[in-house]
Amino acid sequence: MARIAIDMDNVMADLTQHLLDVYEQQYGVSIDPAALDNVPEGSAFPEGVAYKILQTPGFFRGIPVMKDSQEVIKALSEQHEIFVVSAAMEFPHSLTEKLAWLNEHFPFISWRNIVFCGAKTIVEADYMIDDHDKNLSTFKGKPLLFTAPHNLLLTDYRRVNNWKEVAEYFALDTAPVV
Amino acid sequence: MARIAIDMDNVMADLTQHLLDVYEQQYGVSIDPAALDNVPEGSAFPEGVAYKILQTPGFFRGIPVMKDSQEVIKALSEQHEIFVVSAAMEFPHSLTEKLAWLNEHFPFISWRNIVFCGAKTIVEADYMIDDHDKNLSTFKGKPLLFTAPHNLLLTDYRRVNNWKEVAEYFALDTAPVV
Repeated sequence: MARIAIDMDNVMADLTQHLLDVYEQQYGVSIDPAALDNVPEGSAFPEGVAYKILQTPGFFRGIPVMKDSQEVIKALSEQHEIFVVSAAMEFPHSLTEKLAWLNEHFPFISWRNIVFCGAKTIVEADYMIDDHDKNLSTFKGKPLLFTAPHNLLLTDYRRVNNWKEVAEYFALDTAPVV
Repeated sequence: MARIAIDMDNVMADLTQHLLDVYEQQYGVSIDPAALDNVPEGSAFPEGVAYKILQTPGFFRGIPVMKDSQEVIKALSEQHEIFVVSAAMEFPHSLTEKLAWLNEHFPFISWRNIVFCGAKTIVEADYMIDDHDKNLSTFKGKPLLFTAPHNLLLTDYRRVNNWKEVAEYFALDTAPVV
């Protein structure tokens, strides 16, 4: 059994899609998702707007679930120790929203296995699935980079493009040696 | 520089005293603090009452600060990497209250250095200051048991009875060798 630390935003929760949707609803402007590729998060929006949307109560509660994440994480949790590790401290109101979101969409994850933190340097696990270089670069276990628009050019990590690929990775990487 | 993980309840925050005070305010009954010695937390109160008080919105926001903790943690933070690590997930409304409490009483601690979790097995640090055997027993660094009524008989750990003793411990234990 391995301990796997899994990020929420842009890994379990499709934050990018929700940001595009909420921006279009609130400002009446549609942004081409390709405009988000290879630029820092939020910078494809007018200055300060993405941050303002993230600060809006209710934003984190309404994020859609990343495709296939529920099924794959459920299956992984039957063989491994799963910890959800989310950098939530920068947005205080997101704390209760993220917990409610997890309870709704991932009811099989116990509150004992949820971590809301600032820096992730304190996390000890065998694997970390995350979309940010800053979280993976200090991690002592095996890092897995979950593809997001802002990290397409990163080549330092084993990349997983979706949850089907995560399932395939763990089926091979943690299989018992025959 | 060492990384020191510090628990909140009964270590930075005097939860026991607050529980006694709130119980007396709400129920008009004063409990002798000695009745809390060597019994599981909450069991000196009528059944279910302590848990009910802990679930009350506002309870965690109003806890008094543990004596000398601000000065000692401030001094430690100038030489070491401090992480506040609180098992907050069991009481969802406590999340934002605990963050506001920390911002008020420990403004020198960055949101980057705050961790709200369930189980603390995921925490990697050099030292952990905590009042619970369950958190210290799986910790791979040096555990320090902060004295609380429910742990008076534990002998498995280096014990610190108050924050003055924590200061003395770190002055000796992490001093450079001359």
